[in-house]
Amino acid sequence: MIEDLPLQTFLDRLASGSSTPGGGSAAGVMGAMGAALVGMVCNFTVGREKYAAVDAQMREVLAAAESARARLTEAIAADVAVFDHVMAAYGLPKSSDDEKAARSAAIQEALKQATEVPLACARACVEVIRLSADAARHGNTNVVSDAGVAVMAAYAGLKSAALNVYVNVGSIEDTTFTQPRMSEIDALVAEGEASVARIFDTVRARL
Amino acid sequence: MIEDLPLQTFLDRLASGSSTPGGGSAAGVMGAMGAALVGMVCNFTVGREKYAAVDAQMREVLAAAESARARLTEAIAADVAVFDHVMAAYGLPKSSDDEKAARSAAIQEALKQATEVPLACARACVEVIRLSADAARHGNTNVVSDAGVAVMAAYAGLKSAALNVYVNVGSIEDTTFTQPRMSEIDALVAEGEASVARIFDTVRARL
Repeated sequence: MIEDLPLQTFLDRLASGSSTPGGGSAAGVMGAMGAALVGMVCNFTVGREKYAAVDAQMREVLAAAESARARLTEAIAADVAVFDHVMAAYGLPKSSDDEKAARSAAIQEALKQATEVPLACARACVEVIRLSADAARHGNTNVVSDAGVAVMAAYAGLKSAALNVYVNVGSIEDTTFTQPRMSEIDALVAEGEASVARIFDTVRARL
Repeated sequence: MIEDLPLQTFLDRLASGSSTPGGGSAAGVMGAMGAALVGMVCNFTVGREKYAAVDAQMREVLAAAESARARLTEAIAADVAVFDHVMAAYGLPKSSDDEKAARSAAIQEALKQATEVPLACARACVEVIRLSADAARHGNTNVVSDAGVAVMAAYAGLKSAALNVYVNVGSIEDTTFTQPRMSEIDALVAEGEASVARIFDTVRARL
């Protein structure tokens, strides 16, 4: 799996003239790094006398961050898989009208899957942004800058995933599929935009 | 080296209750992913007849992105090294006045190095943001969303590196060291803030 590649190899493949891995996988990595850094702040906070008042809350944040990290790590490879699926559909034969219709249907179906992956990535990134707010407010001050890095990473992951939703939705004809998903991604991006500067400022004030 | 770790292992270590790798290394990864994605857009653009008019320019962007990526990849491990150096200085003996003075001087010196690494990371991230503007404007439209992911990744890397500059500068007494570096990081962040939305919008308009 792609998450087993050495970081340097992942970066080399990202830069190469091959379509995958691309920005969708990078979005998953950014979200997963954000979740990991929320986890790090929690791991420096739970079980410490000085932070006993927020211990129970930070344990919940840690569990939620680890769950989000697992989903975001899955998105790294899933983005490659759905892209390959779309390319395979475009490669189907189109000699007869029947073949053309079957190819068209396969492309539309593959594009829907290729929309769901970045949408799920965006949802998980927004969850990491929410969790980073708790880490920024209540986390161990020795590592609070890591909560600031977490929110920036998750925000970048969110905006990047949104781009991949826009790209795929642009080629999908079924508006009963596209409309609710465009509404959802717009709401997710709006929540991220409204939160990121406030959380970053909370971190800066506690440095 | 840390960049040879599998991506999954890097994420696990980021999340752990160990100080390194932390947000400074994550900033390097984000910047390097941004540079890699600018490179990817260039690699889909150079040598193609449709983009012949921007071929020479995009070859320059590609070379600059690869150079920035090398510097940002170095920052991933360098951030760990300078943190360890600071911790080692704090661990020096402090029984006598002489020891206290030597320890204090070693801490100040280590903090200066720990400021230079994220500052260099921030500089390279701003360079990636500038390069992503060219990729967004002139890159192959099939992969232009990757230029949008690049600018978000580099911007997140910049803001994250800035946090690490603020943290270290806060403990450095020598204002002839801190003042020019705070001026520089403020200017770098201001340039990033002024560019990111415009470049993202350029990408969206070309999707």
